[in-house]
Amino acid sequence: MDKVTLQNVHNRIKSYIHNTPVLTSQLINTICEAQVFFKCENFQKMGAFKMRGATNAILNLTETQKSKGVVTHSSGNFAQALSLAAKQMGVKAYIVMPKNAPQVKKEAVKTYKGIIVECDSNLEAREFEAKRIQMEKGATFIHPSNDDAVIYGNATAAIEFLEDYPDLDYIFTPVGGGGLLAGTLLASKYFSKNCKVIAGEPIAVDDAYRSLKSGIIEKNETSNTIADGLRTHLGDRNFPIIKAHVDTIIRVEEDDIVYAMKLIWERMKIVIEPSSAVAFAALLKEKEVLKHKKIGVILSGGNVDLSQLPF
Amino acid sequence: MDKVTLQNVHNRIKSYIHNTPVLTSQLINTICEAQVFFKCENFQKMGAFKMRGATNAILNLTETQKSKGVVTHSSGNFAQALSLAAKQMGVKAYIVMPKNAPQVKKEAVKTYKGIIVECDSNLEAREFEAKRIQMEKGATFIHPSNDDAVIYGNATAAIEFLEDYPDLDYIFTPVGGGGLLAGTLLASKYFSKNCKVIAGEPIAVDDAYRSLKSGIIEKNETSNTIADGLRTHLGDRNFPIIKAHVDTIIRVEEDDIVYAMKLIWERMKIVIEPSSAVAFAALLKEKEVLKHKKIGVILSGGNVDLSQLPF
Repeated sequence: MDKVTLQNVHNRIKSYIHNTPVLTSQLINTICEAQVFFKCENFQKMGAFKMRGATNAILNLTETQKSKGVVTHSSGNFAQALSLAAKQMGVKAYIVMPKNAPQVKKEAVKTYKGIIVECDSNLEAREFEAKRIQMEKGATFIHPSNDDAVIYGNATAAIEFLEDYPDLDYIFTPVGGGGLLAGTLLASKYFSKNCKVIAGEPIAVDDAYRSLKSGIIEKNETSNTIADGLRTHLGDRNFPIIKAHVDTIIRVEEDDIVYAMKLIWERMKIVIEPSSAVAFAALLKEKEVLKHKKIGVILSGGNVDLSQLPF
Repeated sequence: MDKVTLQNVHNRIKSYIHNTPVLTSQLINTICEAQVFFKCENFQKMGAFKMRGATNAILNLTETQKSKGVVTHSSGNFAQALSLAAKQMGVKAYIVMPKNAPQVKKEAVKTYKGIIVECDSNLEAREFEAKRIQMEKGATFIHPSNDDAVIYGNATAAIEFLEDYPDLDYIFTPVGGGGLLAGTLLASKYFSKNCKVIAGEPIAVDDAYRSLKSGIIEKNETSNTIADGLRTHLGDRNFPIIKAHVDTIIRVEEDDIVYAMKLIWERMKIVIEPSSAVAFAALLKEKEVLKHKKIGVILSGGNVDLSQLPF
């Protein structure tokens, strides 16, 4: 990996994604006593940064591979991202989802012409079904976060951010599967002078925090957080990048997440999902030591079920 | 009124307000089979276009008048707008509000250092109290919508819109007190070749629709709409402008408003208030006859109580 490779990734996916806007809020600057810039991936196609990694992963395939389609298991944003990215390139996307996944998630995938393959609601069934499709259809498996091409695609959010604001002192991201954090770390390494990257993580699913401490990939005992995008684990592709480069991981309580989410909805008038709010909640928690800094926050997505809001 | 005067108003208030962004949505273009552009006054300072009129009205005063303050009666966005505009210029703002106004509205006014004067919850008490402050303090009364300087200030939203998109065929606004609609009509008269202006109005408070039919200002029997910013009546300053220039007024049902609001929240990831959704609901209702047109929609504001959402 080097700067040229990442720049090429950005050049390659550019026409398939939005260069999302960066918003600011005077009130939030006042609260933080800092200059805070929000990279709005909630305005990305299909509503989340995942579009970047999914697009790059498909562009990375040979024509023969593309002709046989791609497959992933996800009931979240990556399911929609892979479906839409595949649709844009005329590729089939098989999406393995648990039978009991919310109807609204299934509908979203169908909107983007993803082919839903239902399975039982456990890891083994999910992996078995994905494997079966790989074998039967010859489709290429693309992991939602633990895949180099996905990580490099995700890096483009921070590349754009640093192109527009080259003197950011910090970038905050959430950490769940680790794909966005790893990508952001690579981008800050190659596209900034000295921008540190801090991740926010819900305390209920603090596997990344514990993995960093122990040096090996830890698992979560529960998935009990409102930040539904962050319930997954790190993987062997992204953890080494995180271990090598992350500044720190800040753990936040559920109440902090809801507070941060509400503040952004009310004051910035934008819809973000709880996972996005985790990055901002981490900043709010650390604001005393970040005074007068230039701070970027990647708002990772905006896909929420409006009938299930926490306020 | 002429083009130069309006241009001067814009030049004068420019540094006190945001030139708000214009957003688009591929999905909404597909639904409407048209090109739709949203002028995001929900991103305006204090969260609504009212900031424009309030700012212009205060800038219009003499230094002596400014030194004695301004007064209005409002429990909605104009209360916040006048408070913030006055604060920015070091002017006192007295805000007459009914005792039983929601605490959240009172808090918002206090944030912007508006001086709240409570009264009973009826028109007479409100007007009496405003009159008393005019007499006692020498403060200048500024009406939320039926005031030339307010109307001209509001016009600047459409002036900016037409500067960026000079070939809009239509602009949609909501109509309540009539201040935004009248301002938009003046802007389209002087700053476009042939841009027609259409207003959306909740059927439950369709005084503007009926006034246009009868030729005189009609009143509403109820205020029974979710679009809380549109419960007021037209006035003698804005009605003549509306009567002379509006293309048509489209009435929409409460369900249409909630549907339009939800569509914008879910798909555009932005927070708009129900009154803003009325303009878009009107467009959705008329979309069959507007195919292939370039259509602007002014999203008038984004101040909602998140604990009271209709979905």
